[in-house]
Amino acid sequence: MKRIDRRRFLGATALAGAAPYATPVLAEETAATPDVTRQLARYVVASRREDVPGAVRKEAARTLLNWAGCAVGGSRHETVDIAIRALAPFSGAAQATVLGRKERLDVLHTSLMNGISSHIFDFDDTHLRTIVHPAGPVASAILALSEYRLVSGADFLHALILGAEVECRIANAVYPAHYDAGWHITGTVGPFGAAAAAGKLLNLSEQQMTWALGLAAAQPVGLREMFGTMTKSFHPGRAAQNGLTAAFLAARNYTSSNQGIEAPRGWANVLSTERNYTEITSNLGAHYEISLNTYKPFPCGIVIHPAIDGCLQLRAAQRLTPDQVERIDLKVHPLVLELTGKRNPQSGLEGKFSVYHAVAAAIVFGRVAEAQFSDRAVRDAVTVALRDRVTASADRSLAEDQVRVTIVLKDGRRLEKFIEHAVGSAKNPMTDLQLEAKVAGLADGILGADRVRKLIDLCWNIEKLPHASQVAAAAAG
Amino acid sequence: MKRIDRRRFLGATALAGAAPYATPVLAEETAATPDVTRQLARYVVASRREDVPGAVRKEAARTLLNWAGCAVGGSRHETVDIAIRALAPFSGAAQATVLGRKERLDVLHTSLMNGISSHIFDFDDTHLRTIVHPAGPVASAILALSEYRLVSGADFLHALILGAEVECRIANAVYPAHYDAGWHITGTVGPFGAAAAAGKLLNLSEQQMTWALGLAAAQPVGLREMFGTMTKSFHPGRAAQNGLTAAFLAARNYTSSNQGIEAPRGWANVLSTERNYTEITSNLGAHYEISLNTYKPFPCGIVIHPAIDGCLQLRAAQRLTPDQVERIDLKVHPLVLELTGKRNPQSGLEGKFSVYHAVAAAIVFGRVAEAQFSDRAVRDAVTVALRDRVTASADRSLAEDQVRVTIVLKDGRRLEKFIEHAVGSAKNPMTDLQLEAKVAGLADGILGADRVRKLIDLCWNIEKLPHASQVAAAAAG
Repeated sequence: MKRIDRRRFLGATALAGAAPYATPVLAEETAATPDVTRQLARYVVASRREDVPGAVRKEAARTLLNWAGCAVGGSRHETVDIAIRALAPFSGAAQATVLGRKERLDVLHTSLMNGISSHIFDFDDTHLRTIVHPAGPVASAILALSEYRLVSGADFLHALILGAEVECRIANAVYPAHYDAGWHITGTVGPFGAAAAAGKLLNLSEQQMTWALGLAAAQPVGLREMFGTMTKSFHPGRAAQNGLTAAFLAARNYTSSNQGIEAPRGWANVLSTERNYTEITSNLGAHYEISLNTYKPFPCGIVIHPAIDGCLQLRAAQRLTPDQVERIDLKVHPLVLELTGKRNPQSGLEGKFSVYHAVAAAIVFGRVAEAQFSDRAVRDAVTVALRDRVTASADRSLAEDQVRVTIVLKDGRRLEKFIEHAVGSAKNPMTDLQLEAKVAGLADGILGADRVRKLIDLCWNIEKLPHASQVAAAAAG
Repeated sequence: MKRIDRRRFLGATALAGAAPYATPVLAEETAATPDVTRQLARYVVASRREDVPGAVRKEAARTLLNWAGCAVGGSRHETVDIAIRALAPFSGAAQATVLGRKERLDVLHTSLMNGISSHIFDFDDTHLRTIVHPAGPVASAILALSEYRLVSGADFLHALILGAEVECRIANAVYPAHYDAGWHITGTVGPFGAAAAAGKLLNLSEQQMTWALGLAAAQPVGLREMFGTMTKSFHPGRAAQNGLTAAFLAARNYTSSNQGIEAPRGWANVLSTERNYTEITSNLGAHYEISLNTYKPFPCGIVIHPAIDGCLQLRAAQRLTPDQVERIDLKVHPLVLELTGKRNPQSGLEGKFSVYHAVAAAIVFGRVAEAQFSDRAVRDAVTVALRDRVTASADRSLAEDQVRVTIVLKDGRRLEKFIEHAVGSAKNPMTDLQLEAKVAGLADGILGADRVRKLIDLCWNIEKLPHASQVAAAAAG
């Protein structure tokens, strides 16, 4: 792909000032690029839900369920408390549901809050090729919208599929250069996904959809520098809100560029040093990115998932208790030690970067959920004692989703487990039941068991629901 | 300045997934950069209004007046109609005034709308070194805030000065590379300015102000590709809204990076290939960027301002009428022809890119305001006839703010005028009276003459007002 034309146009522009709605057009610059934004808009507008294969729609339902669980699970975090306290005074009518809470806000603020909640535990879905979390921006936008406009469950799921398609394709076109540069990609492609999905539900014309994508292009959110702070979760939330805003404006014919993505000074050139537009325009409708979506089984870095998986499996098979265990020896992919080699974590947060803590907790508690990364869990005496008997060594022959676990028992037995593909990896996705258990775990203490069951059933049956908003109602706190 | 570290960290991050609030910290990368964000925050928090020289405060009052005039003038444009129609259904309580209109919206939406209005005619203030329009994001944010929280006029003006300071300094640090890359700089530095100004009025602590700047860093708005569409005006509006949102969140201790600007993956590295942090941190409090603010006398590209100025002066001095004029010959800086050489403009918009139309209109109408760039004015028979008798030739000996005008009359006389520094240029700023006339022209037909006079007086006397919101009340439609 051609590099952005960076010739200095500066002096000229400074002098020209800026007349309303006009700038000297550099026609020769734009001639070479295909009509990427319009092609994408045309596809989204033309797509019919009956064209989408059943397997794709099934994966979309799983995406929805995982997102709903994450949003409910994160909803009581202080990050959400603060965001609501800060912004509720400016909210419009109580149009939509902040999942897991009693507050209702206007559609735009609700999309922000649910997007924040869904990312707080970093437990949301992952498009592994680009590390985009597709559901956050898209589902947060359109579920809120569905409480304001009548949207059937089937149309909702279709819009979710299209939104994920748009954001992941745009991400594919600029990844990895864009991410390497420091953008938090979920927040930068998210507005496109939210705009496309919301725009579909608002029945935008091709021109309006093109404008909506242009408005989304002008509102990227999120720098990787913000990782480690509350602002990280703000990114997918604001991306949802920005995309939804773009769709509402475009629906009223608020104009934007027709080449927001591919123009010489459009999104892809300005926000990335490399780009491949065929990732966006080829095989539209023949292939669905949401099919590649994955869901984390454990709320910590993916690198330690194989080790956790191995220990949980050995524990279950052998009904192990911590006092039986003499020591645990791990052979891991080298990145595990590089990224999660913290020997003596002092807080729950640090625990997420300690493979030693994670496997000890797996044996002690028999599950690895958010509770196992609380400050208390990390300081739990039994867990700490076991953690000190864990060793881990790098083995370059192992793939990133593999591990060799050896547990030596006090009675002298050696238990071994080789994990070929960790649960939740692309080759070994979480089963529907595992996903249900994850969601139930996240909602525990927030929604009652009946409500959780109802929420799960509604997600599985989303295409049969007359109103997509039933999902929001079931997840209200 | 050191280039951004673009080494691939990709695989590692993908695998690490993202634990909440934590990412592998690359400490060695950050050691070299000064504490730019915190220094800026500290300055804003510590600044006292009595430290600001009177001349600076006077320029800030001029900035406010020009901004208010532009916002009122643009307020009836369809861009604003559409934006309000699209987003008002989600607005909170009627907390603040959309200038020039009857609608009242919540503080955040009001800041968006006033920011849009103020940029529609591209008639707003210009920080010439960076082409930032400082007032749009900042004044739009804090005037709306002043209707929600009690803010004295003196504190308001101080906050405006600080907001402009923050955005222009950050712009200085990355200009021109950042603008050349395709960012609409007013929208990308605007959130910082709005956050700083609003944060000052919200009495943020140094830590909170640092977070507010971090939140602003994560929300840049605006691509130059959007020039020529309604989205261009959206940029300063959304920048105001984003900065205000950042300040409200930070006031509740919503955390962000402490190095949002200067971190390896912070704003300046991610959004610009070059940066000079001393522009941000040196001479804080000793020098004020708002002193360098300028105001356009004519609503078109700055390059043709000298020619308009010359013709208006000759017309006034000689009481010229169009039928006296045989022809007009211009010697202009070469950029004039390059950027505004349109011989036969067909629309008002094209008229803004025609030096021929502009000077003909100056002679015919005796003023060059928005009305002279209407479709009707561009097609006006007398103006067209005169336009066809205008010649313009490039003269490389002329500076950008200069022109040589020769008007040959039918009676054989030759009138000559050399403009050394066009009105509105840095060397020949608009007088207060000229600024008042500009504002009156913009508000004509929107506010009555009494209201315009009141608005002007309130701006001049802003520091004496018990409530800054009086300015908004006077500018209500």
